[in-house]
Amino acid sequence: MKQFTSVADVPNVSNLIEDVLRIKGTQDREFGKHKNLTMLFFNPSLRTRMSTQKAAQNLGMDVSVLDSGQGWKLETEPGAIMNGDAQEHICDAIKVMSSYTDVLAVRSFPTLTDKEADYNETLLKAVIASSQVPVLSLESATRHPLQSLTDMATIVESGIRKPKIAVTWAPHPKCLPQAVVNSFLEWSAFLDADVWLTHPPGYELDAPFTQHATVTHNQLEALEDADFVYCKNWSSVTHYGQRLEGYDDWMVDTMKMSRTKQGKFMHCLPVRRNVVATDAVIDSSIVYEQAANRVWAAQAVLQQLLKA
Amino acid sequence: MKQFTSVADVPNVSNLIEDVLRIKGTQDREFGKHKNLTMLFFNPSLRTRMSTQKAAQNLGMDVSVLDSGQGWKLETEPGAIMNGDAQEHICDAIKVMSSYTDVLAVRSFPTLTDKEADYNETLLKAVIASSQVPVLSLESATRHPLQSLTDMATIVESGIRKPKIAVTWAPHPKCLPQAVVNSFLEWSAFLDADVWLTHPPGYELDAPFTQHATVTHNQLEALEDADFVYCKNWSSVTHYGQRLEGYDDWMVDTMKMSRTKQGKFMHCLPVRRNVVATDAVIDSSIVYEQAANRVWAAQAVLQQLLKA
Amino acid sequence: MKQFTSVADVPNVSNLIEDVLRIKGTQDREFGKHKNLTMLFFNPSLRTRMSTQKAAQNLGMDVSVLDSGQGWKLETEPGAIMNGDAQEHICDAIKVMSSYTDVLAVRSFPTLTDKEADYNETLLKAVIASSQVPVLSLESATRHPLQSLTDMATIVESGIRKPKIAVTWAPHPKCLPQAVVNSFLEWSAFLDADVWLTHPPGYELDAPFTQHATVTHNQLEALEDADFVYCKNWSSVTHYGQRLEGYDDWMVDTMKMSRTKQGKFMHCLPVRRNVVATDAVIDSSIVYEQAANRVWAAQAVLQQLLKA
Repeated sequence: MKQFTSVADVPNVSNLIEDVLRIKGTQDREFGKHKNLTMLFFNPSLRTRMSTQKAAQNLGMDVSVLDSGQGWKLETEPGAIMNGDAQEHICDAIKVMSSYTDVLAVRSFPTLTDKEADYNETLLKAVIASSQVPVLSLESATRHPLQSLTDMATIVESGIRKPKIAVTWAPHPKCLPQAVVNSFLEWSAFLDADVWLTHPPGYELDAPFTQHATVTHNQLEALEDADFVYCKNWSSVTHYGQRLEGYDDWMVDTMKMSRTKQGKFMHCLPVRRNVVATDAVIDSSIVYEQAANRVWAAQAVLQQLLKA
Repeated sequence: MKQFTSVADVPNVSNLIEDVLRIKGTQDREFGKHKNLTMLFFNPSLRTRMSTQKAAQNLGMDVSVLDSGQGWKLETEPGAIMNGDAQEHICDAIKVMSSYTDVLAVRSFPTLTDKEADYNETLLKAVIASSQVPVLSLESATRHPLQSLTDMATIVESGIRKPKIAVTWAPHPKCLPQAVVNSFLEWSAFLDADVWLTHPPGYELDAPFTQHATVTHNQLEALEDADFVYCKNWSSVTHYGQRLEGYDDWMVDTMKMSRTKQGKFMHCLPVRRNVVATDAVIDSSIVYEQAANRVWAAQAVLQQLLKA
Repeated sequence: MKQFTSVADVPNVSNLIEDVLRIKGTQDREFGKHKNLTMLFFNPSLRTRMSTQKAAQNLGMDVSVLDSGQGWKLETEPGAIMNGDAQEHICDAIKVMSSYTDVLAVRSFPTLTDKEADYNETLLKAVIASSQVPVLSLESATRHPLQSLTDMATIVESGIRKPKIAVTWAPHPKCLPQAVVNSFLEWSAFLDADVWLTHPPGYELDAPFTQHATVTHNQLEALEDADFVYCKNWSSVTHYGQRLEGYDDWMVDTMKMSRTKQGKFMHCLPVRRNVVATDAVIDSSIVYEQAANRVWAAQAVLQQLLKA
């Protein structure tokens, strides 16, 4: 595997999911010995940072972390006359950083104002174009493949055959990316599963991501007999990056969960309790098992990238 | 030892102090091999961060560091409707973080405005309640046990029998926690020592911490014939978290030190020179030996936690 | 080698340059095993941070990083009454930090307002005075020796004998330190090379640094038949720390490079494209090879410091 930025980079999705479950709980300190993983964060991260770092350590790799949060402005426009705020062109920064490492992991978020730039993955593509080593996405403008691989492994791990999976929008006070849900839908097309997507009007996702799912505005219809409830907020695509008023009643509660087939509640975390879902739903969910699986997903992916 | 948050967590205080001195200057890279220490800082740290990291490295552990300084707001109220600033509930954050590590070390400071919350150790207790692995306090609202263990080891290391220890308040331009002095008093009760506590009126400590000490407002009386002068500023407990005007003459100087029995001056650092104590006092003190012992205290504690 | 803060610390410059090229591409994980490198950044860093960290990892060292960026104020004045913003005196902070490590690496920048303090290297000297272990400069107020060693190795690596090296000032929208160019001139005196320095009037460097170079205000004369063009902006020394108006035409472009002897363009990065030099010049330069050599320079220096 030459890079890991979307499901399209994975030669065999089923095999990779199997890998995750096979290596779960193991370490192989010889595998990545004397190799370096550099993680570059354009946006903050808790779970992704810690689970990927742990995965690299499990493989014996050295880890370097760089937070570009404050003050480090990169130019992304080719040919720019750089007399403004940006100190360095991304092509130069990435060429150099990638010369110091074996795998370059990058997290960036969408602008949520410029749909074209976001859905073109302008920043991620600029990184890939300049990197001399495999690029590992720690979430990009429109996808979060490490999360999705984790989610797939968690679903397969349950042993439920041909599950019904209800992906449901839920309320949130902020404007969030569509990356997690986009990516989940893309990956779940590779499962032997019946995938439903439900959200209020105005929260339609970009068409290419929803082609394998049954879409409905009726949340209860989607939840009916579901084996998994995959809950996530996202901002509007059509009113790009915006939060539409209303729909607070889309919060997932015990009543709604009772319509499912003892459905397992999943969420990528962090979750706003009693806004996205009630305490009772989260406390009886599998979100912690899911989060713990992040390590093994990252570890399986790092192994594939190091093999390349 | 299942956790290390106060002296009450330590089965045998004398043994632990002996451990610190026994392992001083040694490494045991096999002991913690392939284990991870995660350090979570709600407040900045220099000595604690570096000495604990070094201790973990000495044991062959991997170390992950997370600074929650900017922008990462956690909800601590159970049952909260999370539609405000907090992105994540502490119970979720800690459950997940602790699933990625073997020991979870946490630093937090008091509010210095809400005495009840501080002295109930609300934040630390929330961390402990959700952690799946042993919790190591890197200073909490009311205690700093790694500092105190270091202090005890430094005193025992001196070989002075039945020492007189004078714990003295000193001036400072800022409002500081009571954690270091609280903790020192709690731990020193386990030494075969004569412990005096001196401070200006209005700086009385919480009663449970002072029961083994002789308390006086007369600084010179406390210093008289002291073998150790443990100097520290703290804010008022009765006027909670406040700095009372005056008492600049409580600075420790050579004149005052001359009343001691060639007393060794100790301070946890950082110290405001020529405010808390004069240059001359600090320059002839044992504060650097004391600070260097931080590594061995942390290393002894990590060993106990890994054994658990 | 007891410290590495300028070329004057190096017993044999040619040997050290040879070392860099000899160890290029190699690791020696036993060499620094169980040793710690602590990197203290008073100013942000990308290349220096990552390349030095990688160098230390190549030698099997543990690396601790401390960013003093926000909020950590150190007093540098001896005898100061510390009732202001500074929480700790640099002498105390460095004594303690150096007791936790085997090599202490420090980055600081000039004030660019107080020439005397900068050119006296007040901060660096204070660090050296208090450190118990060898000090490695990651750039100081007036020098950047790791960059210069890299530059020398990159020039020697080219195999060009008795090269003409043109060091040229270039425009920049900000006021930058003189450290890189000062240091380059100091080090290049040890090469068998013909070193030219060119800059607009008003950008004269401090005399001791330029004694081995031919200085001219005529950029084209300096570039004529040059084998290497070392390009860098710096602020004025005589109008200390200031940016003088004009001289935008000092940008290096293909036309100017055509006057050289197929000259190789070098820059320490980050570089402002189309301000300092054009895209075409940078894209056909050796700046990435140069940046990649940072690892081997740091690795060679760490070996010498560990031997001490």
